[in-house]
Amino acid sequence: MFNTRVKVKELLSTTPENQNVTVMGWVRSFRNNQFIALNDGSTNNNIQVVAELGVFDEELLKKITPGASLKVTGQLVASLGKGQSVEVKAAEIIILGECNPDTYPLQLKNRPSLEYLREIAHLRFRTQTFSAVFRVRHALSFAIHKFFNEKGFFYLHTPIITASDAEGAGEMFKVSTLPFDNPPRKEDGSIDFSEDFFGRATNLTVSGQLEGELGAMALSEIYTFGPTFRAENSNTARHLAEFWMIEPEMAFYDLEDNMNLAEEFIQYLIRYVMANNREDLDFLAQRLADEEKQKPQAERSEMGLIEKLEFVVNNKFERITYTEAIDILLQSPAYKKKKFQYDVKWGIDMQSEHERYLVEKHFSKPVIVTGYPAAIKAFYMRQNEDGKTVAAMDILVPGIGELVGGSQREERLGKLEQRMREMHIPVEEMWWYLDTRRFGSVPHAGFGLGFERMMLFVTGMTNIRDVIAFPRAPKTAEF
Amino acid sequence: MFNTRVKVKELLSTTPENQNVTVMGWVRSFRNNQFIALNDGSTNNNIQVVAELGVFDEELLKKITPGASLKVTGQLVASLGKGQSVEVKAAEIIILGECNPDTYPLQLKNRPSLEYLREIAHLRFRTQTFSAVFRVRHALSFAIHKFFNEKGFFYLHTPIITASDAEGAGEMFKVSTLPFDNPPRKEDGSIDFSEDFFGRATNLTVSGQLEGELGAMALSEIYTFGPTFRAENSNTARHLAEFWMIEPEMAFYDLEDNMNLAEEFIQYLIRYVMANNREDLDFLAQRLADEEKQKPQAERSEMGLIEKLEFVVNNKFERITYTEAIDILLQSPAYKKKKFQYDVKWGIDMQSEHERYLVEKHFSKPVIVTGYPAAIKAFYMRQNEDGKTVAAMDILVPGIGELVGGSQREERLGKLEQRMREMHIPVEEMWWYLDTRRFGSVPHAGFGLGFERMMLFVTGMTNIRDVIAFPRAPKTAEF
Repeated sequence: MFNTRVKVKELLSTTPENQNVTVMGWVRSFRNNQFIALNDGSTNNNIQVVAELGVFDEELLKKITPGASLKVTGQLVASLGKGQSVEVKAAEIIILGECNPDTYPLQLKNRPSLEYLREIAHLRFRTQTFSAVFRVRHALSFAIHKFFNEKGFFYLHTPIITASDAEGAGEMFKVSTLPFDNPPRKEDGSIDFSEDFFGRATNLTVSGQLEGELGAMALSEIYTFGPTFRAENSNTARHLAEFWMIEPEMAFYDLEDNMNLAEEFIQYLIRYVMANNREDLDFLAQRLADEEKQKPQAERSEMGLIEKLEFVVNNKFERITYTEAIDILLQSPAYKKKKFQYDVKWGIDMQSEHERYLVEKHFSKPVIVTGYPAAIKAFYMRQNEDGKTVAAMDILVPGIGELVGGSQREERLGKLEQRMREMHIPVEEMWWYLDTRRFGSVPHAGFGLGFERMMLFVTGMTNIRDVIAFPRAPKTAEF
Repeated sequence: MFNTRVKVKELLSTTPENQNVTVMGWVRSFRNNQFIALNDGSTNNNIQVVAELGVFDEELLKKITPGASLKVTGQLVASLGKGQSVEVKAAEIIILGECNPDTYPLQLKNRPSLEYLREIAHLRFRTQTFSAVFRVRHALSFAIHKFFNEKGFFYLHTPIITASDAEGAGEMFKVSTLPFDNPPRKEDGSIDFSEDFFGRATNLTVSGQLEGELGAMALSEIYTFGPTFRAENSNTARHLAEFWMIEPEMAFYDLEDNMNLAEEFIQYLIRYVMANNREDLDFLAQRLADEEKQKPQAERSEMGLIEKLEFVVNNKFERITYTEAIDILLQSPAYKKKKFQYDVKWGIDMQSEHERYLVEKHFSKPVIVTGYPAAIKAFYMRQNEDGKTVAAMDILVPGIGELVGGSQREERLGKLEQRMREMHIPVEEMWWYLDTRRFGSVPHAGFGLGFERMMLFVTGMTNIRDVIAFPRAPKTAEF
């Protein structure tokens, strides 16, 4: 048994009584050949290990460099130093793994940039910024499961590999075991997918929603939380080829129920992280404040990270219709001064600049927009009585834009089939989806929350590649 | 707002005081034109809705068929009937969605087989068996997160798409956006993957372990819980092409720590489900007992499902070395009577028949086998002093065989590189993995638990395709 350590997080909240403790971790810094800041990832804070002068071998002390791993046994005592209440007075220090300071990419003094850290994503977990980010990511994930579990939702694992390409949510990755070099072909020269692993062409899923609906039509309330994929060639700070999405789907919900749930959900998540990861958030807030200082005054956020999160938790989201949103844009100084790059009129798919105007300039808070034109939304959204809009809702938040997209689903078989034909969705292939409308159909609704966008919102990080461990994007599949 | 209902699960534990309630769900049965068994998936039990004779329209009553969805408002009253303590005396019944009994595939009387239900996996959630299975799946999933969260582990989302093919754990699915028909080629005629989405050839991950280690080398204790893939052409009741795996990875753990964690983990999960899903387990236990009755006496399990789960929770797992396991097999009546299909000698990769002998006949309990021959295990397992075995551990359980595979990892750079070269693993490509051994390496360990195998063990289902919502297997990618 090797695992005899006490975690740093626990040590830091333990009353020091000169008790013997073992702590293990990586060196963050070593001052005056005497004070070791040791971290084990359990918290952003370090435990100070004191190696009294003259007690330890010079050869050993030389190996205590940033990044080296140690096993320290000693007494937990009250600390006289600033910034900590306890420290470990080392009786024994064992070097578990050395770390050559001449080659170690993460030397604290260098203040490596976020861009550089992306290239060494296998090591960036060891920085304060990224250990905080990934602890928050854990906390948010757990909060998601906790929220739904408490409400009696069931976690459904929808398939990753799918033969269905009907959702039309974006370009898809192909999945195959056929030899690329020389795939089997049919007589007409086309690829013979019947010889592929699944006996047909398959892709990586872009959404678990349709399968989620199947679950909700029996279990009432389900949610998914898993990876989804888009083969979009977008090399931006907002897009990933592989990202995680949460998609709850609820029988017996209309659009209003859907909005209420989504709003409650987002507020719950933020509240959870604020209660459980305050130190991480404080660190990230400071990081963001430092980053903002580099910007011209006009581009800086009006609120700090913590302020912004508190604001979202404590205020109802604004709810407006798409038609109202377009009117606001048309009345805006930005529109009148021709500051928008893209045109504004009823029927457009609002661009990021429009969404940001609404949430950041006009309302200064999260906004739920409902009743989008049917023409710009997916086939499964419930058709409104006006014959031109659908019961869709998007939640837009400051700094991020669209965080949630959802809708009440079209539960009426005839209307759904008609819409599918209009949109050239293969009705026959989707027999299983339509069966839910054939046999005991019910009003139902759901939404999708992009997990990494939520992470950006909560951590104040600005590049989506910095909130997922190993980002996948065009020409990027390292690690 | 449509969602005014009270869930059946909640109603069934509410004290009836003639209060007005709304309940929504699907009809399971309708007896005597009067008693509706309504279910909403929140529990295996139904709420009885009483439609008093003469009160409701004949046309309405005709539409109350199995599978139809209803909204019922009425009074919650004490029930005089058998099997329930409360029932709803209907004041209003609204048919939300009809269900044609002539075409509805799930007519209770037919007792559809599990095989048939696999073909209509989009509807099988509505059966008692599968709603129980998927509620248990949710509970197990939640218990996994709860266990690790309580222990201070961080949930890490390791990548699904990977350019690394070094793990050698099995055949992989290729992921690409190249046109299959006419892919770009290099001058030598080979496929030019530099033009593919990621600028290189990519696959679906077979394990998140290597990336998990990167996280553990900073955050100390992490776990993954996500989909993994094998393109193995195995059309069996035990294999899936897409399955979910839990892979914890812990810094500062040796093999014994690893075993202790795995054992505690499995017992925790079972205890959680027994405490939270007893009704589902009781139903599944009965189902299994009925299934067992179809078998010849000799093939029946000695224990019922609940008994078996209690046994696992209340008994320490047996711990033996691989060498001891081989000795037991060589001494066994089965071996002496030549009942094993595959040969037994030191060095073999034990077959299912051997593992089952050990756990089902010899020990009658879960067994942890350690110290496997290096030759049959992966490159990253820590080499023992004997020069021929590694610090691996497999956990074998009755009825399933291998449930967990894990090891202490080789943390010594020189030994790891040497082993990689021996096994023809590309050392240069794996620079990022080796960096963790270069910079502050520490003893660490981890394991993988196949989620669907755990599901089989806990639910008593016997085909792995019956414990995942939409199974993926050779020639199988429906829904």
